[in-house]
Amino acid sequence: MSILVVGSIAFDSIRTPCGAVDRCLGGAATHFALAASFFTDVRVIGVVGEDFLPEHEAVFRARNIDIQGVEHTAGKCFHWTGEYRENMNEAHTLGTALNVFERFRPKIPEAYRDSDFLFLANIDPALQEEVRRQMPRVKMVCGDTMNYWITGHRENLARVLRGLDALLINDGEARLLADEPNLLQAAQRILAMGPKTLIVKHGEYGATAFFSEQSFPGHRTQAFFHAPALPLKDVVDPTGAGDSFAGGFFGYLASQPKVTPGVFKRAMFYGGVMGSFAVESFGTERVQRLTREEIDRRFALFRELSHLDDN
Amino acid sequence: MSILVVGSIAFDSIRTPCGAVDRCLGGAATHFALAASFFTDVRVIGVVGEDFLPEHEAVFRARNIDIQGVEHTAGKCFHWTGEYRENMNEAHTLGTALNVFERFRPKIPEAYRDSDFLFLANIDPALQEEVRRQMPRVKMVCGDTMNYWITGHRENLARVLRGLDALLINDGEARLLADEPNLLQAAQRILAMGPKTLIVKHGEYGATAFFSEQSFPGHRTQAFFHAPALPLKDVVDPTGAGDSFAGGFFGYLASQPKVTPGVFKRAMFYGGVMGSFAVESFGTERVQRLTREEIDRRFALFRELSHLDDN
Repeated sequence: MSILVVGSIAFDSIRTPCGAVDRCLGGAATHFALAASFFTDVRVIGVVGEDFLPEHEAVFRARNIDIQGVEHTAGKCFHWTGEYRENMNEAHTLGTALNVFERFRPKIPEAYRDSDFLFLANIDPALQEEVRRQMPRVKMVCGDTMNYWITGHRENLARVLRGLDALLINDGEARLLADEPNLLQAAQRILAMGPKTLIVKHGEYGATAFFSEQSFPGHRTQAFFHAPALPLKDVVDPTGAGDSFAGGFFGYLASQPKVTPGVFKRAMFYGGVMGSFAVESFGTERVQRLTREEIDRRFALFRELSHLDDN
Repeated sequence: MSILVVGSIAFDSIRTPCGAVDRCLGGAATHFALAASFFTDVRVIGVVGEDFLPEHEAVFRARNIDIQGVEHTAGKCFHWTGEYRENMNEAHTLGTALNVFERFRPKIPEAYRDSDFLFLANIDPALQEEVRRQMPRVKMVCGDTMNYWITGHRENLARVLRGLDALLINDGEARLLADEPNLLQAAQRILAMGPKTLIVKHGEYGATAFFSEQSFPGHRTQAFFHAPALPLKDVVDPTGAGDSFAGGFFGYLASQPKVTPGVFKRAMFYGGVMGSFAVESFGTERVQRLTREEIDRRFALFRELSHLDDN
């Protein structure tokens, strides 16, 4: 079934200990859509400027991603400049030029209205809510956010959280949102804010899902589930790893006939798999040339590196 | 089969966000021995002062731990004073009084010589080596160390590393020892220093084992294995969690007829289980009143929270 994603399409200028790139294709919606496209149909809502060229469009088209909901407007694309130093888990923002994103008002094409799954990537919660309201019949809504919205736009964010099936954020964001250093207590506070399930991404340490009674009504499950990460020799560029995780996770979910606890757990593993590929090259490079066979091989590796056996 | 452990028996004065205790029983050998005692026979080499009373001895005896190798001498026990603030993964040392530990020279009783497994807890690598040399026929040797020895006693430590079947340290220690921020690259450098296997403990994010070709000669295994941790609502006192992990890990290994990859992986899970209990109360409190049934129930929980299933 189709996923509709709303979020940024951007150019990123990134420096890491492995090198640097200038203005490579990026943005949360881009990374999410590419990762999810290996599992299901993806439709994108976003805005780009005149510097978004046919060669960038081709990246989406090559993965059969529907971009008729991407608005072309005068000006330049959103441009993020950032740096990772020794600690590759921490991005240092050197510049954010919103450009065309500054006046972005999401419009949903008629052809997108039957989407069953909705992903609200990390943008202004007011916009997330606007999109959510226009899609009242979706089966499942997941979302992301970040420190900037948690700190300065809490009321709008609270309204978004109440409508989410799953919120995907990282440890620092979870602790900030709940104002609580203990992760389990933070998770319980966040679940009380509305999301039925919380997924906390730990970067190189994998991810943990925290379930509520609303996660799988009628199913008995543990209160949490942990998916591993793959130790990688060369983390070239962590940008987009979280969005790729979300894309793998939600893409797999949307491809399955029913969202059971077992499907949800496998989706967490696929999230980790897609995140692990994303960081192997700058920007979208690695995921662009990925194959489904590579994904399935790495899924098997994730299982092997985390599962007990009898030998 | 019996494990011989050499390390500190101490009193700890600890303050955490959950409270404070003054001079509770602690020390690496104590935490290790208590955890391992649920799986196999444990023998302790250490030194205590006149403040080590029958009530402290009773803690070991209640778990059938052999302490005839614990030397009683004039003076006071090793005393550590420390604090955990909001980040419970980081201990702040406020005071270290070595006391009787300052002149400690390990002596191995004749009755201990047939021990098959040896654990070198975190002490001066010169002493670790001395004990190792006196036990030439042990089947398996594991060890721990810390920043202080990595920084200031590197040559002695290097000799110890060459004789280890497994080294158990945390992320920060691994990065410092290898002088490399990427964990997989750090692990490969450390394996090149001698240990056949490296286990890196990630605190609340579990632990990863990095294998070399010497880990299981004749077996094909992945290069690593990840064991989860249990999200805990109340981390009362993290002191001794790493030693309890080591005790659960090595205790289980020593209880099995053969150390296969499957046994090793289950041992990692038992390590996580014992660490998760250790932090639930101050000092040794929680592990003292633990039962094997509780351990097995939690082991099942660790499996459930990390394993894919078919529902």
